[in-house]
Order: sequence, then structure tokens, then C-alpha cells
Amino acid sequence: MTGSVDLLITNGIVMTMGADNRIVDNGAVAVCGDAITAVGPAGEFAALTARETIDAGGGIIMPGLVNTHTHAAMTLFRGLADDLPLMTWLNDHIFPAEALLDPQKVQAGTLLGCAEMILSGTTCFCDMYLFEGAVAEAARTAGLRAVVGEVLYDFPSPNYGPIENGFAYTCELIDRWRDDPLVSIAVEPHSPYLCAPDLLTTAAGIARDNRVPMVIHLSETRSEVADIRKKYGLTPVQHLADLGVLGENLLACHCVILDENDMDLLQRHGVKVAHNPESNMKLASGIAPVAELLARGVCVGLGTDGCSSNNNLDLFAEMDMAAKLHKASRLDPTVLDATTVLRMATIEGARALGLDGITGSIETGKKADIIVIDTRKPHLTPMYHPASHLVYAVGGSDVSATVVGGRVLMKDRQLLHLDLEKIMADARQIADEIRRHQDGL
Amino acid sequence: MTGSVDLLITNGIVMTMGADNRIVDNGAVAVCGDAITAVGPAGEFAALTARETIDAGGGIIMPGLVNTHTHAAMTLFRGLADDLPLMTWLNDHIFPAEALLDPQKVQAGTLLGCAEMILSGTTCFCDMYLFEGAVAEAARTAGLRAVVGEVLYDFPSPNYGPIENGFAYTCELIDRWRDDPLVSIAVEPHSPYLCAPDLLTTAAGIARDNRVPMVIHLSETRSEVADIRKKYGLTPVQHLADLGVLGENLLACHCVILDENDMDLLQRHGVKVAHNPESNMKLASGIAPVAELLARGVCVGLGTDGCSSNNNLDLFAEMDMAAKLHKASRLDPTVLDATTVLRMATIEGARALGLDGITGSIETGKKADIIVIDTRKPHLTPMYHPASHLVYAVGGSDVSATVVGGRVLMKDRQLLHLDLEKIMADARQIADEIRRHQDGL
Repeated sequence: MTGSVDLLITNGIVMTMGADNRIVDNGAVAVCGDAITAVGPAGEFAALTARETIDAGGGIIMPGLVNTHTHAAMTLFRGLADDLPLMTWLNDHIFPAEALLDPQKVQAGTLLGCAEMILSGTTCFCDMYLFEGAVAEAARTAGLRAVVGEVLYDFPSPNYGPIENGFAYTCELIDRWRDDPLVSIAVEPHSPYLCAPDLLTTAAGIARDNRVPMVIHLSETRSEVADIRKKYGLTPVQHLADLGVLGENLLACHCVILDENDMDLLQRHGVKVAHNPESNMKLASGIAPVAELLARGVCVGLGTDGCSSNNNLDLFAEMDMAAKLHKASRLDPTVLDATTVLRMATIEGARALGLDGITGSIETGKKADIIVIDTRKPHLTPMYHPASHLVYAVGGSDVSATVVGGRVLMKDRQLLHLDLEKIMADARQIADEIRRHQDGL
Repeated sequence: MTGSVDLLITNGIVMTMGADNRIVDNGAVAVCGDAITAVGPAGEFAALTARETIDAGGGIIMPGLVNTHTHAAMTLFRGLADDLPLMTWLNDHIFPAEALLDPQKVQAGTLLGCAEMILSGTTCFCDMYLFEGAVAEAARTAGLRAVVGEVLYDFPSPNYGPIENGFAYTCELIDRWRDDPLVSIAVEPHSPYLCAPDLLTTAAGIARDNRVPMVIHLSETRSEVADIRKKYGLTPVQHLADLGVLGENLLACHCVILDENDMDLLQRHGVKVAHNPESNMKLASGIAPVAELLARGVCVGLGTDGCSSNNNLDLFAEMDMAAKLHKASRLDPTVLDATTVLRMATIEGARALGLDGITGSIETGKKADIIVIDTRKPHLTPMYHPASHLVYAVGGSDVSATVVGGRVLMKDRQLLHLDLEKIMADARQIADEIRRHQDGL
């Protein structure tokens, strides 16, 4: 191969995460503009001229991770309150803190989340929160790929007021960001328990008409399932099926409490699932039947959920947790093997967001969303199998470079385009305000 | 306070982990020789002269972590084989690799483990393996506090041959290391299923006569419980009670499968427990009833187990896992709160090893086994509660300094007394040999 490229990432084990999970030992990836133009043995790239080169130092070159469910601005509430009964946590801590939010604070919190994500190897995230216009701006500022959507529910929103305005706000976001190279919009009704049937069918209509994803919390807790059963005589999944809103563009987050029929419905309608093991564990929601979903062929991605119930955005930790949790839960050491979990955090996550044509694997023609892992550390020595390392031994702090759409966002643990000190100072100042407010309650 | 000290660690939130869990905001710790001489507000230490100062930069100063159960040399098998049925994993991968071991390789693997532990904030570990004389030497070289013991079982050992020699080897270790400031010896029969009653009672006698701890794997798997029931008509715990080997100096590792009577027996005899959630999950052994043990007042420490079933030695990850696992398992978000888990990884771990008079908390008169956490990072911003951060957000790579017995082993992520490049090169060379051997099988 000869000629010139914009970026060459070389001297690493390339985990393509393509359909065949091809691994290129001592490989390289060439990037022109925002796209991958070649993948192969490093030797074949020796004659290339590159404007910029990243030497992986014998480490691992892999697709950036995809966080299919988070509330990025909730980094502001990281560790605000833990180890509490759900309703105490929500009513006495989270809701009062959220009442202080405005677009500026949401943007500041999201920027903090983006900094953390870039430093831990996430290149794409799907967000649900208030003031999502500010989240979209923060994602663009940070240079991350993002699917964002304003949370919709029956009661008046601190952002848009009554729900009709919420639909209008969502449609404006869709129009405004339609041609953005990184940010796209989803329609995001909160959940069956906070959204009346009309809201859900209207939201689904907007998503369908605009060919965008719909994202919802679904069957997260036993109390949700009991509530919906009481109200509608159906499980939450059956209820959505009944309303005609299950479909291939639906991303259902959590799906902890599912019966066999629910799983069949999700499978039959091509619904995608975001699995958030750490949040489900910390909030004591339970253990989602992920092995069963995967056995049915349901597409399952990984998510961290918000920082108030995790308390970080590190998808490497989430992979480790997912791989181990289901082994313990099913008493079977073979379920959710390392490669399966790695696919959940990359290409399957991208598929869950409808972005598998764009990101989630290192293949020619895809956007260059790539990370590098520095393995020259005692906790990553020796290395027998890179997939095993990535799931069971690597942490977010081992990521040495993060590239999104061909743009290098982080190199040698340094953020190249964000003022990290200012971002952390802003977050601390908001936290002081939250702390004062909570102390005064 | 005036005068001079050897080491001053200052400008951090001091988590003492004493009986009252006292936290000193903007605190400092003074060290003379190998011991802590004062703990208090940093202002009170301003007039002190210190030979060496560590500035915690507003982060967290806390006791070094105590790993109550590991096989440090198994770092050599990190990721060698995963996601396999237990017997395939053991018979086709781990046992053949272990057959290649000798004291030099065990020492090399232990040094690698020590490097990883120092870098992730562990200052004391309890080890069970073959060639433990080499493990003791490695711990001394690394400067870590360690309780080590040669594994004893019915069949001939690659180290000592027949079991009588194993007892003699253990007694020699006890004599040789009796007055060492860092390394002490335990008597370590493998488990009820690999040790005949005679072996167990003899081992217990040696431990009693020498006033040293005894360490054993106990009730780790359902198949172990079934085996012991078949052989002796008792659960493994009942079997040990029957033999008279339960006691306050016994550290029982795993304890995954326990009935109510087992838990009562452990409590009544003052047995200590090492909880290894990540290994128990990865090997699909199950979920130990830790909340029930704690409710009974049983002393429970944390352990990583070996790197072949984890696959790292990071006790921060282990804390996060322990705190979350039992919430999910018991569907109760209040069990194993952050402070409880933090105590398991520090003072309760020390108590489990009989070392709570020496290490595990920052109190005047204790040995200076101290670590510092750098919190000036996005994933640790903002900070509302340090205990929450330590359990749910901090990772081993956030440790910026590690001190054992007053000696600074790591500062600013640099190991000060170990040749890390050589340690990693040695481990890679041994891994190459293991890989060639496995390929040839």
C-alpha cells in the first residue's frame, strides 16, 4: 500500500469486531477524513505517508465502545447518595437535586461525562435526560458520537412544560441535528409507568415518521411490572406490544423483569435491549435474563446508566460485570464469554442504536471510531488472549488514545480539545450548590 | 506539633478506618520509622520537619488494602483460559501450566503480582500456593506485608513430595520468617476435599502450637459440598467442626455454599472468612451469603483469588463488585453499604489475618501501611462522600502513592524499588513457555 492518509494507527493487535471477529496481530488501521480506508498487517502500511501516526506500542487497537444507555449529566450526582431504598434515594436526593438543573448545568454535567467517556474509551453514547439540546451541544463540543433525546412523560417538564411542547421540542431537535455528522436524535418516552398510552403511541409515530430510534426504560423493576399489571392487566412489554410500539427502532433499556412471553415479543418485533448490569445491581433491581435474550437472537448492547447509580461511565468495568454476573446467576461459567460481551460493548451496541453501518467495528468504509489500549502494564501482563484481557483485566484508564470520526480526542491520557480543569471546576461549583441545597432541606 | 518525622502524608481526606470510621477533612499522617506517630488536621502538622513529604493534592489518604486470599504467582496464567466448564479449565489448562512451575517461576509470577498490587493500593496479601518460600522472598523483595503458606494436600506435591515433608517445610518456613517485619507464615491445607482428616488435624495442631493462622478453601462449590456429604455425611463446615479445627485463627476462603447451621458454626468458633466475589462469579461457583455472615458478626475480608479466575488483583474492583453483587442477589439496595465494604477491604481484612493490631487502619502506633488516591480526575468529580467514591468510582489506577511500613513503594504511579520492565519481561518469557507447552498438548 502506498500514498498518504490522514491518520495511521499501527503496531497493535487489531480487534476488528466485524462479523467474523477477525483479529490482526501486529496490525494497522488507515484513516482518511472521518473514515477507515484500510485494515491489515502493519507491514503492508509501511510505505504509507501519514499526517498523524498513533503507535499502539504492541497494545490493542479496537472499535470505540458504545454506551447504549446513560444520563450523562448525572455525573453531577455521582455518589450524592448511595445504598438507600429506591424511593428515599429518588425523593430525598435525586429529585431535589434535579430541580436545580437548567440547560447550563446539564451542559456542564454532560461535558464532564464526555471527558470521562473519552478517557475510558467510549466513542458513542445514547442519552436520555432533561434539556437534551444542551446535551447535543456538549456532545458536539466534546467530539463524541451521540444519540440524544428529551425525556417525555405525563407530568410537566422543567424544560418544555406540557407534553405537547415536549413533542414539539423533540421534533425541533430532530430537524436541527438531522445532518450533523456526530449527533442524532431519538424520541424518548421515559417508561410505561410515567407515560400514558397516548403519549407512547404519539412518540412512536414521531419516531416512525422521522425514521429515528425510540428509546424507553422498560421492565426495570418489580414494582414497575406490578404497577403496569394493575393498571392494564399486562406486563410492560405486553402493554407496549398492545399499543403497537414495539419495533426494530425501539431500544428498551434495562429489561430486568421479563417472562418467556415478554422475551418472545421482544425477539419477534426486533426490539433492541440496553443491558445495565451495574445500575441494576446497585439499585437492587435484579439481574436481567441476558443469556436468554442472546439465545433468542435479541440484539443486546451495554450501558452504564447514569452516574448516580453506577457510579462511573467506564464500559470496561461494565463488560467485566456483565461477563461475571450472568455466570454467577446461571451457575454456568460458559455464558456471556469474553467475545460475546466485547461485541455487546461495540458492534451490538451500535446495532442497538441503528448505527451499525457507521460505527462499532473496524472495517473499511466505517467511520474511524477507534481506541487504543496500552498493555505494557503489570495487570495486563502476560497476554494470552486479547478478548479476555479487554473484558476481564483492562480498565478505562488503560485506554491510551480515543479517535472519533477520524479526529483524535485523547492521546497519552491527555484530552486534546477540552479544557478539563475548567470542566471539573464547573462541576465542583454545581456540586457545592447541590450540597448546600441538600443540607438546607 | 513540632519536631521532625520521616514521612508526612498531607493535604488529603484521611479515612482512618478506626473503630469510629473517623474521617479527617484536610488531614495529615506523620510517620516515624515504620509506624504512624500522629493523625490529624493538616494545619497541626505545619511546623513539622519531614524527611519526605507526600502531598495528596486534596485526594484521599487511607489504609492500604488487605487482600485476604490470592495465589499471587497465578498472574502468570492471567487470561490463559476463560469461560470454560470448571473441569476443562483445570484439567486442560491450569494443571498442565502448573506442572511447569518451579521456585524461580513462582518468584517471578509473585513479583509480577506484587507490582500489580502495589500499583493498585494493596499493601498486605495472604497467599496460598506451591513453593511459598519463593513467594515469601518475592514479598520481601517487593516490600509488601504478606501472610504466606505452602499448600498442603493428600497427593505428592511438586515442591515437597509426601505430606510429612509438607509439614516439615511449613515448620521451617515458620521458624525462618518468625521475626520478619513484613512476612509471616500460615499453615494452609488446601480444602476438605483434597485433605484427609489426619492432614487437617495435624495442620491445625501445627498452627495452634506455633500461634499462626490456618488458611483453607472451604465450601467453595456445590460439588465440594456434595463430595464431603457423600464421604462424611456432613457439610464441609460441619466436617471441620467435627474434626475440631474451627477456631479464631482459621481463615476460611470462599464459603459460598453455607446453610444456617454452617453460618452458626463459623460465628460460634470465631472463624474468619475471605470473600472472593469476582472469582466466585467467573467460575460460576455462586454467591456467598455475606450479608447473613455480617449480620451474625462474622469477620469477613475481601480477596481477589488468583489471576486465572478474576483476572486481576485490583481490590477496588473487588469492592465495587461486592457492594453491588449482594444488593442484586438480595434485592436490597441497603446491604453492604460503602463503609461496610471499605472496612472489609481494610481493617476487617487485617483482622481476618490476625494483623488488626498492626495494619488495616490509620491510627497512632500502627504500622504505616498507607495509600493515597488522586481524585483530580473527571471520573472522580465531583465528590460528595469519599467512602462512596472509594467503593463505586475509584479504580486501582487512581492510587498515586503506596507506603508499607513507612517505606514508599510507589509514588506518582512509579514503582521505586522494583525493576518493572524486567519483571514484565520475565513473565512474558514464562508465558511463552506455557503457550508453547499448551499448543503442543
